[in-house]
Amino acid sequence: MTVQGYETAPWELRWHTLAIDQLERTESTFALSNGHIGIRGTLEEGEPRGKPGTYLNGFYKEHALPYAEAGYGYPEAGQTVVNVTDGKVIRLLVEDEPFDMRYGTATAHERWLDFRSGTLSRLTEWVSPTGRQVRVHTQRLVSFTQRAVVAIRYEVEPLDGDMQLVLQSDLLANEPIEPETKDPRVAAALQSPLVSEFALAEDYHAVLVHRTRNSGLRMAAAMDHQIESPHAFRSDIIVEEDLARLTVAVDVPKGDRLVVTKFLGYGWSAKRSIPALRAQVSAALAGARQTGWDGLLAEQRAFLDDFWETADIQLDGDPELQQATRFALFHILQAGARGESRAIPGKGLTGPGYDGHAFWDTESFVLPVLTYTVPEAARDALRWRHSTLPKARERAVQLGLRGAAFPWRSINGAECSAYWPAGTAAFHVSAAIADAVVRYLDATGDTEFERDVGTELLIETARLWMSLGHFDLHGKFRIDGVTGPDEYSAIADNNVYTNLMARRNLLAAAASCERVPEVAERLGADEPELGTWRQAAERMFVPYDEELGVHPQSEGFTEHAEWDFDNTPAEDYPLLLNVPYFDLYRKQVIKQADLVLALHLCGDRFTPEEKARNFAYYEARTVRDSSLSAGTQAVIAAEVGHLDLAYDYVGEAALTDLHDVHNNVREGLHMASLAGAWHGVVAGFGGMRDHNGEITFAPRLPEGLDRIEFRMCVRGNRFAVEIHRDRATYRLVAGEPVEITHHGQPCKVSEHPMSLSIPEIDPGPAPTQPPGRAPSRRHPERLRRHEF
Amino acid sequence: MTVQGYETAPWELRWHTLAIDQLERTESTFALSNGHIGIRGTLEEGEPRGKPGTYLNGFYKEHALPYAEAGYGYPEAGQTVVNVTDGKVIRLLVEDEPFDMRYGTATAHERWLDFRSGTLSRLTEWVSPTGRQVRVHTQRLVSFTQRAVVAIRYEVEPLDGDMQLVLQSDLLANEPIEPETKDPRVAAALQSPLVSEFALAEDYHAVLVHRTRNSGLRMAAAMDHQIESPHAFRSDIIVEEDLARLTVAVDVPKGDRLVVTKFLGYGWSAKRSIPALRAQVSAALAGARQTGWDGLLAEQRAFLDDFWETADIQLDGDPELQQATRFALFHILQAGARGESRAIPGKGLTGPGYDGHAFWDTESFVLPVLTYTVPEAARDALRWRHSTLPKARERAVQLGLRGAAFPWRSINGAECSAYWPAGTAAFHVSAAIADAVVRYLDATGDTEFERDVGTELLIETARLWMSLGHFDLHGKFRIDGVTGPDEYSAIADNNVYTNLMARRNLLAAAASCERVPEVAERLGADEPELGTWRQAAERMFVPYDEELGVHPQSEGFTEHAEWDFDNTPAEDYPLLLNVPYFDLYRKQVIKQADLVLALHLCGDRFTPEEKARNFAYYEARTVRDSSLSAGTQAVIAAEVGHLDLAYDYVGEAALTDLHDVHNNVREGLHMASLAGAWHGVVAGFGGMRDHNGEITFAPRLPEGLDRIEFRMCVRGNRFAVEIHRDRATYRLVAGEPVEITHHGQPCKVSEHPMSLSIPEIDPGPAPTQPPGRAPSRRHPERLRRHEF
Repeated sequence: MTVQGYETAPWELRWHTLAIDQLERTESTFALSNGHIGIRGTLEEGEPRGKPGTYLNGFYKEHALPYAEAGYGYPEAGQTVVNVTDGKVIRLLVEDEPFDMRYGTATAHERWLDFRSGTLSRLTEWVSPTGRQVRVHTQRLVSFTQRAVVAIRYEVEPLDGDMQLVLQSDLLANEPIEPETKDPRVAAALQSPLVSEFALAEDYHAVLVHRTRNSGLRMAAAMDHQIESPHAFRSDIIVEEDLARLTVAVDVPKGDRLVVTKFLGYGWSAKRSIPALRAQVSAALAGARQTGWDGLLAEQRAFLDDFWETADIQLDGDPELQQATRFALFHILQAGARGESRAIPGKGLTGPGYDGHAFWDTESFVLPVLTYTVPEAARDALRWRHSTLPKARERAVQLGLRGAAFPWRSINGAECSAYWPAGTAAFHVSAAIADAVVRYLDATGDTEFERDVGTELLIETARLWMSLGHFDLHGKFRIDGVTGPDEYSAIADNNVYTNLMARRNLLAAAASCERVPEVAERLGADEPELGTWRQAAERMFVPYDEELGVHPQSEGFTEHAEWDFDNTPAEDYPLLLNVPYFDLYRKQVIKQADLVLALHLCGDRFTPEEKARNFAYYEARTVRDSSLSAGTQAVIAAEVGHLDLAYDYVGEAALTDLHDVHNNVREGLHMASLAGAWHGVVAGFGGMRDHNGEITFAPRLPEGLDRIEFRMCVRGNRFAVEIHRDRATYRLVAGEPVEITHHGQPCKVSEHPMSLSIPEIDPGPAPTQPPGRAPSRRHPERLRRHEF
Repeated sequence: MTVQGYETAPWELRWHTLAIDQLERTESTFALSNGHIGIRGTLEEGEPRGKPGTYLNGFYKEHALPYAEAGYGYPEAGQTVVNVTDGKVIRLLVEDEPFDMRYGTATAHERWLDFRSGTLSRLTEWVSPTGRQVRVHTQRLVSFTQRAVVAIRYEVEPLDGDMQLVLQSDLLANEPIEPETKDPRVAAALQSPLVSEFALAEDYHAVLVHRTRNSGLRMAAAMDHQIESPHAFRSDIIVEEDLARLTVAVDVPKGDRLVVTKFLGYGWSAKRSIPALRAQVSAALAGARQTGWDGLLAEQRAFLDDFWETADIQLDGDPELQQATRFALFHILQAGARGESRAIPGKGLTGPGYDGHAFWDTESFVLPVLTYTVPEAARDALRWRHSTLPKARERAVQLGLRGAAFPWRSINGAECSAYWPAGTAAFHVSAAIADAVVRYLDATGDTEFERDVGTELLIETARLWMSLGHFDLHGKFRIDGVTGPDEYSAIADNNVYTNLMARRNLLAAAASCERVPEVAERLGADEPELGTWRQAAERMFVPYDEELGVHPQSEGFTEHAEWDFDNTPAEDYPLLLNVPYFDLYRKQVIKQADLVLALHLCGDRFTPEEKARNFAYYEARTVRDSSLSAGTQAVIAAEVGHLDLAYDYVGEAALTDLHDVHNNVREGLHMASLAGAWHGVVAGFGGMRDHNGEITFAPRLPEGLDRIEFRMCVRGNRFAVEIHRDRATYRLVAGEPVEITHHGQPCKVSEHPMSLSIPEIDPGPAPTQPPGRAPSRRHPERLRRHEF
């Protein structure tokens, strides 16, 4: 066991002991999801618990957003993900004692998430307060193959003699939840969001249908059970508005076991009737029972085998990072696999943080991972954006703009950000969507997607930029008064990242219009309009500080006061909780990679020398109060040759949630940070770039690792990149050969492994971080001692 | 009568007919106040009514400020002026018909505010629904000489025969008020803010003591009556928690009258007990009864005679403007006369608008008027600011700053602004306070004030600027990320107005420390600190656009996109109700004078040519969605020689409320705009400036006027300035001779009138305003036809 309580292992995450005060965070790390349904890693018996949660992607409640001083265009309705009907509750009475780990004694207790089987298991040996001994073994999955299905296998075995067991299996709606903290980043939870519409229970199955109190959505949850018992048992099922409960009472002899398999079906809709939704979840259950527990397990394993063949990352020499990276990939898969035209929220479906909203994180950090590993998931997430185009167009009109203004945060596509300087003004979200479209198109050649979705997204985002910017007196195209990625700056002129991303957006839109002229014609994007896009792109203003030799993050940034890091005590971080926005905005202090993100995503617009100088400049001013930052810093640190620093940042990104770096994992995992681990390895150590659809590599191995191997899928062709100290080896795993470059040298990846040498790099002096804000150093020696 | 319904007259404001839909606005224009108590011009019988209101300066209720997304340093408590116990209600039963002008017929009805007697009168002849005829004549005053006293004289006369009259005189707390509109500029009203603590009634007098539900303040209202009746009458007095009512029933023969004089006493305290407050208001009543109605009238007249001797403005040739200007001066006096260490709210005590908060308007626009006409009132308002220094210091600490950060909006000195980009970030409020201190000191030579109040205010505001700004790499002192006066821009770098005002603040603080070293020493402002102030002032960065030859309002402003005025329909104004802030902030559209205000207040830092170019540039981009703008535009239009334009702007400023230009006079008068009329005349046509304590004039007469005379008081010496077409005449009215300059020529104003010629000026082409946003033209010919 590491100090953090997780046992290091290559393919699983295992936690020993109960540790009640840690339940909230392990419920997040042990969450299961398929992108449609998410269930937190709560103990089956319901208590003790941290923050129970069962989520259906896209299912939200609405509340009025309050403003002490209102303003035109402020969103009026907020959306919050709903903790829906909880089906994972299975309570147990051992003789006449409730199985509750706060009482009695646990002689063994562990839980483990298996990245290959896609299951969460638990094994508990418990002595009741009256001294009876029992073993409880559970395993659960949220099926990747049967999207509406959750299944739980619950086994109880008497250890010290014959035993009467009573098991209660619930569907429980409107679960009371503790009030949230005052942290502005933590969303408020509303109580009892669901109104009962239908409830029925018969034999071993039950169904509850509810609607939200105020967002017009309807959901159904159903359960069915398969009971394996050595002896005759009595069962009883009851139903109320917010509760269905199957009770099974049985006498189990020592050496025998009671095994209950619980199948859950979930569904929701804004349109379907009560009978239709009820039928839908019943059908899901019928399918699940037909497949059976073993069948579901086998399907799950096959699905994951295929995933790991395309996506796995091997990091020899650092078992903790190896585990964390697979943990990251597993959770990214869980967040996106079966969303199917729903958003991928910032926390996936692992917790209620950020109200369950999706942000630009999805397109900027999560979708690149999916694009090169599970491209259908990237496609579906972009289809969700496309499905919200009417709302984005409406929002643009409301803001006096053209095209589509995508929301800063949302569940259903409508803007929910109540603080416009860090919401509405952060228009770069639309560029991130366009960029994700281009990346997906380049990586897949999916022409159907381009015709149906891609071109339209590109046209409407290009139009947004044209209405946001203007040509100045010297013909430069300026984009003023917007907010870039760094949330410690806002409403500034000519944010370099935003302008460069807008430039790319405009060029990509024009190119797509030429490829798919019928869509361009339908949307009225004619040649003169394309001409203005190209002109704006060509004349895009990118401020540069000649004197310092660096790019200001936004115009004027490098003239602002320096932050007084020396007099900022450690407890003042994160600064946003201890310093007013106004002070953050006007000084040279950076929450998260902004100009440095431009160095990554728009790296073709900077010389190597500019990258090195810019990185050093911003590194000294970036405090990483955001989990979005470390991955990007890893990428550029690696590019400019600071491989040890990159290694530290990869560690931070990958371990953000396992080490609870931001002390808020209880609210859910940081999907973008987990994705940052992939970026750090693939784009950082692998040097992978995809500018203009060309896949290029510049691999280098950091001191702390012995070998790296990562996988990618480009146009359906899977290949592996293996990095050694002096050489990299490329080999095709499946499909056709792929053209790449290695450190600038064009070559072809084929089934014959190709080894190419890695050139030397002199990175110069190491950059410094603000005092106390350097990333934790990864010490390979120490870590190896914990290896097993 | 003019089209607006007010009759034009030099010394009064008179309104004929009832016009129920206009009641709200006339309640504001007919409001009476002495700066301590304010009562709106509601009909005595209570209904019909617009928005009743009785206010005690500084008496507020508190409520939580809601934030959908909270942030560090956001104010948590809002303050709202309370509609306190209403003592002006006197209901009448004529025979058995309630006197209610919505029924029966008014054969005559007029109300008039007399600027010399300081009273609001009303004469109504009414035929009841059953045909009985009665004349009601009332007169009321809020005493300037007895600060806690309101008095009402109520006369009823039967016109068609003997008549039974029943009169009910109330003290009424927690009056229900209609909910407010959704206009973000209109404050929300909370119902029933008062909790009864004590109530007593006896004979003809009563007292009610209440406390606020949640702000810890206590108030008392008492009434007493003097009844003059030709016959014996029956009277009865009752009291409840929220009501005291004296009922008088009497038979009045035709030709006789019932006359009731109602005396009201008001008081509030955060500290005094119930008995103490009760005693306080009873004592006030005893004083008022001792003086008597005629005595109160005489004192009021004498107070106003003195005021007009110092403050009057004569505008020959434009009777409407003449009336409006005296109306403006009268209301400014009412707002400030007896505030005595309370704020002067943006609306004075004339209505609930802006929640009753005071803003920078007070120091920037209202106090200059008072400084040169009723300097004690300016002094008291600054004493209020000084009394809030502990809160301003606390706020500075909270914001990570030094010195004092005065609130953007407040009643008790604590920040109540819930939108920081246009609140906290508008630090120029502190410079306005410093500037008002300097102006008051220069105009009065009040060394006691400097020692007690002035130096400390200057030191603490200077410290604020030092912590807000920084020296850049070239040694320039920059103030980044603040908001200037123009509310259609925010969070910009190096706002010229702010930087120049900060510069003056720093220099004035250093100078004051040298004059009053004991205060400097007490506050630790030593020579090195003064040195940094002087250095920052000397190196203050003032951006300039060499190419356009104008000063950008803030750095980068002139590079922003132009506003598309041609495609902005008239109904889109005010823009803030129809356009998002983000779009306003990033374009060249200006709500109110900002750089142009710098041209006025810091005119010594610009050449005449710069002024002309800057004025033309900003004139074309200023939409005047704020009532704070026209007066300043008048001043600079006059200075650069566009006297007709200045005349239009003076008209707009003076008539803002009488013409209800912003369609919100129902919420109260715009004190700063009324003050703007004074600025337009005195600083505009008179060319008065007070840079460095020197009083200079550059008078010019616009075409539309035949003659202007205005008065001023400098160091206790009163003098008059008379402007003719070709010459100006200066003469001392009282006191010692005063040194001034006339168009650059030094001279001395003495009891011998001194006439000096006015040089020619060639203003060049007239500036243009955005389409549809030119001020209304004043047509002297048309106006003269309405003269009488």
